[in-house]
Amino acid sequence: MHKSRLAGYIIDCQTGDLDAAARFWSAALGLEVRSSPQPGESKYRTFATAPDQPHLEVQQVEHASRVHLDIEADDIEAEVARLERLGAKRIGPVRSWYVVQAPTGQRFCVVRPQRADFAARANTWD
Amino acid sequence: MHKSRLAGYIIDCQTGDLDAAARFWSAALGLEVRSSPQPGESKYRTFATAPDQPHLEVQQVEHASRVHLDIEADDIEAEVARLERLGAKRIGPVRSWYVVQAPTGQRFCVVRPQRADFAARANTWD
Repeated sequence: MHKSRLAGYIIDCQTGDLDAAARFWSAALGLEVRSSPQPGESKYRTFATAPDQPHLEVQQVEHASRVHLDIEADDIEAEVARLERLGAKRIGPVRSWYVVQAPTGQRFCVVRPQRADFAARANTWD
Repeated sequence: MHKSRLAGYIIDCQTGDLDAAARFWSAALGLEVRSSPQPGESKYRTFATAPDQPHLEVQQVEHASRVHLDIEADDIEAEVARLERLGAKRIGPVRSWYVVQAPTGQRFCVVRPQRADFAARANTWD
Protein backbone atom coordinates (compact mmCIF):
# COMPACT_ATOMS: atom_id res chain seq x y z
CA MET A 1 0.00 0.00 0.00
CA HIS A 2 1.29 3.46 -0.82
CA LYS A 3 -0.02 6.98 -1.34
CA SER A 4 0.32 9.55 -4.11
CA ARG A 5 -1.33 12.64 -5.53
CA LEU A 6 -0.76 15.52 -7.90
CA ALA A 7 1.93 17.64 -6.26
CA GLY A 8 2.45 20.60 -8.55
CA TYR A 9 3.84 21.99 -11.74
CA ILE A 10 7.25 22.94 -13.07
CA ILE A 11 7.75 25.59 -15.74
CA ASP A 12 10.82 24.25 -17.56
CA CYS A 13 12.74 27.08 -19.17
CA GLN A 14 15.53 26.66 -21.70
CA THR A 15 17.28 29.86 -20.73
CA GLY A 16 20.65 31.24 -19.75
CA ASP A 17 19.00 33.60 -17.26
CA LEU A 18 16.88 31.73 -14.74
CA ASP A 19 16.22 34.83 -12.65
CA ALA A 20 14.82 36.70 -15.66
CA ALA A 21 12.58 33.72 -16.40
CA ALA A 22 11.41 33.66 -12.78
CA ARG A 23 10.74 37.40 -12.90
CA PHE A 24 8.57 37.06 -15.99
CA TRP A 25 6.50 34.21 -14.57
CA SER A 26 6.25 35.89 -11.18
CA ALA A 27 4.87 39.06 -12.73
CA ALA A 28 2.67 37.19 -15.19
CA LEU A 29 1.05 35.02 -12.52
CA GLY A 30 1.16 37.52 -9.66
CA LEU A 31 3.05 35.07 -7.46
CA GLU A 32 6.14 36.01 -5.49
CA VAL A 33 9.36 34.07 -5.87
CA ARG A 34 10.46 32.55 -2.56
CA SER A 35 13.65 34.24 -1.39
CA SER A 36 16.70 32.02 -1.44
CA PRO A 37 17.09 28.84 -3.47
CA GLN A 38 17.92 25.76 -1.40
CA PRO A 39 21.54 24.55 -1.47
CA GLY A 40 22.07 22.38 -4.53
CA GLU A 41 18.92 23.73 -6.16
CA SER A 42 20.43 26.56 -8.14
CA LYS A 43 18.41 25.53 -11.19
CA TYR A 44 15.06 26.19 -9.48
CA ARG A 45 13.05 29.19 -8.35
CA THR A 46 9.95 28.40 -6.31
CA PHE A 47 6.80 30.52 -6.13
CA ALA A 48 5.16 31.37 -2.82
CA THR A 49 1.97 29.37 -3.34
CA ALA A 50 -0.30 28.67 -0.36
CA PRO A 51 0.40 25.40 1.53
CA ASP A 52 -2.84 23.82 0.27
CA GLN A 53 -2.12 24.67 -3.39
CA PRO A 54 -0.03 22.72 -5.92
CA HIS A 55 3.57 23.86 -5.79
CA LEU A 56 4.88 25.82 -8.75
CA GLU A 57 8.49 26.26 -9.76
CA VAL A 58 10.59 27.55 -12.62
CA GLN A 59 13.41 25.21 -13.62
CA GLN A 60 16.38 25.90 -15.87
CA VAL A 61 16.63 23.06 -18.41
CA GLU A 62 18.71 22.06 -21.43
CA HIS A 63 15.78 20.64 -23.42
CA ALA A 64 13.06 22.74 -25.08
CA SER A 65 10.91 24.83 -22.76
CA ARG A 66 7.70 23.24 -21.55
CA VAL A 67 5.52 22.73 -18.46
CA HIS A 68 5.45 19.42 -16.63
CA LEU A 69 3.63 18.11 -13.61
CA ASP A 70 4.87 16.28 -10.54
CA ILE A 71 3.19 13.46 -8.65
CA GLU A 72 4.24 13.17 -5.00
CA ALA A 73 4.44 9.66 -3.56
CA ASP A 74 5.58 8.05 -0.32
CA ASP A 75 6.98 5.09 -2.29
CA ILE A 76 8.46 6.20 -5.58
CA GLU A 77 9.14 2.71 -6.94
CA ALA A 78 5.60 1.53 -6.12
CA GLU A 79 4.16 4.63 -7.73
CA VAL A 80 6.25 4.25 -10.90
CA ALA A 81 5.17 0.60 -11.10
CA ARG A 82 1.52 1.66 -10.68
CA LEU A 83 1.87 4.25 -13.45
CA GLU A 84 3.55 1.66 -15.67
CA ARG A 85 0.55 -0.63 -15.25
CA LEU A 86 -1.64 2.29 -16.37
CA GLY A 87 0.41 2.55 -19.57
CA ALA A 88 3.18 4.98 -18.69
CA LYS A 89 6.79 4.34 -19.70
CA ARG A 90 9.79 4.55 -17.39
CA ILE A 91 12.34 7.12 -18.53
CA GLY A 92 14.65 6.83 -15.54
CA PRO A 93 15.70 8.02 -12.10
CA VAL A 94 17.13 11.51 -11.49
CA ARG A 95 18.51 12.35 -8.04
CA SER A 96 15.61 11.70 -5.64
CA TRP A 97 12.86 11.46 -8.27
CA TYR A 98 11.85 9.38 -11.28
CA VAL A 99 10.92 10.58 -14.79
CA VAL A 100 7.97 8.86 -16.48
CA GLN A 101 6.30 9.36 -19.86
CA ALA A 102 2.53 9.27 -20.21
CA PRO A 103 0.92 7.25 -23.04
CA THR A 104 -0.12 10.67 -24.38
CA GLY A 105 3.56 11.70 -24.60
CA GLN A 106 4.07 14.16 -21.74
CA ARG A 107 6.98 13.52 -19.42
CA PHE A 108 6.42 14.06 -15.71
CA CYS A 109 8.13 13.32 -12.42
CA VAL A 110 7.36 11.17 -9.41
CA VAL A 111 8.79 12.99 -6.41
CA ARG A 112 8.89 12.56 -2.65
CA PRO A 113 6.01 14.05 -0.62
CA GLN A 114 6.19 17.84 -0.96
CA ARG A 115 3.42 19.23 1.20
CA ALA A 116 2.51 18.96 4.87
CA ASP A 117 -1.00 17.60 4.21
CA PHE A 118 0.24 14.76 2.03
CA ALA A 119 -0.52 11.93 4.47
CA ALA A 120 -4.02 13.25 5.19
CA ARG A 121 -5.04 14.05 1.63
CA ALA A 122 -3.17 11.84 -0.81
CA ASN A 123 -4.82 8.88 -2.54
CA THR A 124 -4.14 5.42 -1.13
CA TRP A 125 -3.36 2.59 -3.58
CA ASP A 126 -3.44 -1.09 -2.69
CA MET B 1 -7.77 48.47 -13.58
CA HIS B 2 -8.33 44.75 -14.06
CA LYS B 3 -7.76 41.49 -12.24
CA SER B 4 -6.05 38.22 -13.13
CA ARG B 5 -4.47 35.15 -11.58
CA LEU B 6 -3.28 31.66 -12.38
CA ALA B 7 -6.42 29.68 -13.21
CA GLY B 8 -5.26 26.16 -13.90
CA TYR B 9 -3.59 23.72 -16.22
CA ILE B 10 -4.48 21.92 -19.42
CA ILE B 11 -2.96 18.57 -20.37
CA ASP B 12 -2.89 18.85 -24.18
CA CYS B 13 -3.04 15.40 -25.75
CA GLN B 14 -2.39 14.64 -29.40
CA THR B 15 -4.64 11.63 -29.48
CA GLY B 16 -7.49 10.06 -31.39
CA ASP B 17 -9.02 8.78 -28.15
CA LEU B 18 -9.68 11.59 -25.72
CA ASP B 19 -11.53 9.36 -23.27
CA ALA B 20 -8.59 6.96 -23.04
CA ALA B 21 -6.30 9.94 -22.39
CA ALA B 22 -8.67 11.20 -19.69
CA ARG B 23 -8.79 7.72 -18.14
CA PHE B 24 -5.01 7.52 -17.93
CA TRP B 25 -4.63 10.94 -16.34
CA SER B 26 -7.56 10.35 -14.01
CA ALA B 27 -6.02 7.13 -12.71
CA ALA B 28 -2.50 8.56 -12.61
CA LEU B 29 -3.51 11.62 -10.61
CA GLY B 30 -6.31 10.04 -8.61
CA LEU B 31 -8.78 12.68 -9.78
CA GLU B 32 -12.23 11.85 -11.13
CA VAL B 33 -13.35 13.08 -14.53
CA ARG B 34 -16.43 15.28 -14.27
CA SER B 35 -19.39 13.52 -15.85
CA SER B 36 -20.63 15.10 -19.02
CA PRO B 37 -18.69 17.47 -21.26
CA GLN B 38 -20.39 20.83 -21.82
CA PRO B 39 -22.06 21.36 -25.22
CA GLY B 40 -19.44 22.48 -27.74
CA GLU B 41 -16.62 21.25 -25.51
CA SER B 42 -16.23 17.78 -26.90
CA LYS B 43 -12.45 18.23 -27.00
CA TYR B 44 -12.19 18.62 -23.22
CA ARG B 45 -12.50 16.42 -20.17
CA THR B 46 -12.40 18.23 -16.82
CA PHE B 47 -11.18 16.78 -13.54
CA ALA B 48 -13.17 17.15 -10.33
CA THR B 49 -10.72 19.41 -8.52
CA ALA B 50 -11.86 21.28 -5.40
CA PRO B 51 -13.28 24.79 -5.98
CA ASP B 52 -10.25 26.45 -4.36
CA GLN B 53 -7.73 24.49 -6.47
CA PRO B 54 -6.43 25.29 -9.97
CA HIS B 55 -8.66 23.69 -12.58
CA LEU B 56 -7.24 20.79 -14.54
CA GLU B 57 -8.42 19.51 -17.90
CA VAL B 58 -7.38 17.15 -20.65
CA GLN B 59 -7.69 18.64 -24.14
CA GLN B 60 -7.54 16.87 -27.49
CA VAL B 61 -5.12 18.81 -29.73
CA GLU B 62 -3.59 18.58 -33.21
CA HIS B 63 -0.14 19.81 -32.13
CA ALA B 64 2.36 17.79 -30.10
CA SER B 65 1.26 16.80 -26.60
CA ARG B 66 2.23 19.17 -23.81
CA VAL B 67 0.94 20.85 -20.66
CA HIS B 68 -0.02 24.52 -20.65
CA LEU B 69 -1.32 26.91 -18.05
CA ASP B 70 -4.24 29.31 -18.09
CA ILE B 71 -4.46 32.78 -16.59
CA GLU B 72 -8.00 33.91 -15.79
CA ALA B 73 -8.75 37.62 -16.23
CA ASP B 74 -11.79 39.88 -16.08
CA ASP B 75 -10.44 41.92 -19.02
CA ILE B 76 -8.69 39.69 -21.53
CA GLU B 77 -7.38 42.49 -23.74
CA ALA B 78 -5.97 44.41 -20.75
CA GLU B 79 -4.34 41.23 -19.46
CA VAL B 80 -2.79 40.37 -22.83
CA ALA B 81 -1.47 43.94 -23.06
CA ARG B 82 -0.01 43.63 -19.55
CA LEU B 83 1.69 40.33 -20.44
CA GLU B 84 3.02 41.89 -23.65
CA ARG B 85 4.65 44.66 -21.62
CA LEU B 86 6.30 41.93 -19.51
CA GLY B 87 7.81 40.44 -22.67
CA ALA B 88 5.19 37.95 -23.87
CA LYS B 89 4.18 37.72 -27.51
CA ARG B 90 0.62 37.70 -28.82
CA ILE B 91 -0.22 34.54 -30.76
CA GLY B 92 -3.90 35.29 -31.28
CA PRO B 93 -7.48 34.96 -30.15
CA VAL B 94 -9.30 31.61 -30.05
CA ARG B 95 -13.05 31.58 -29.28
CA SER B 96 -13.36 33.33 -25.89
CA TRP B 97 -9.67 33.24 -24.97
CA TYR B 98 -6.30 34.52 -26.20
CA VAL B 99 -3.09 32.55 -26.78
CA VAL B 100 0.16 34.16 -25.65
CA GLN B 101 3.79 32.99 -25.77
CA ALA B 102 6.13 33.59 -22.85
CA PRO B 103 9.65 34.94 -23.45
CA THR B 104 10.78 31.49 -22.27
CA GLY B 105 8.82 29.88 -25.12
CA GLN B 106 5.79 28.27 -23.47
CA ARG B 107 2.40 29.07 -24.93
CA PHE B 108 -0.44 29.69 -22.52
CA CYS B 109 -3.97 31.07 -22.56
CA VAL B 110 -5.71 34.07 -21.07
CA VAL B 111 -9.25 32.97 -20.28
CA ARG B 112 -12.35 34.43 -18.66
CA PRO B 113 -12.71 34.04 -14.87
CA GLN B 114 -13.14 30.34 -14.11
CA ARG B 115 -13.66 30.05 -10.39
CA ALA B 116 -16.16 31.50 -7.92
CA ASP B 117 -13.51 33.16 -5.72
CA PHE B 118 -11.93 35.04 -8.62
CA ALA B 119 -13.09 38.53 -7.60
CA ALA B 120 -12.01 38.03 -3.99
CA ARG B 121 -8.63 36.43 -4.63
CA ALA B 122 -7.26 37.54 -8.01
CA ASN B 123 -4.47 40.10 -8.30
CA THR B 124 -5.46 43.66 -9.19
CA TRP B 125 -3.41 45.52 -11.80
CA ASP B 126 -3.52 49.29 -12.37
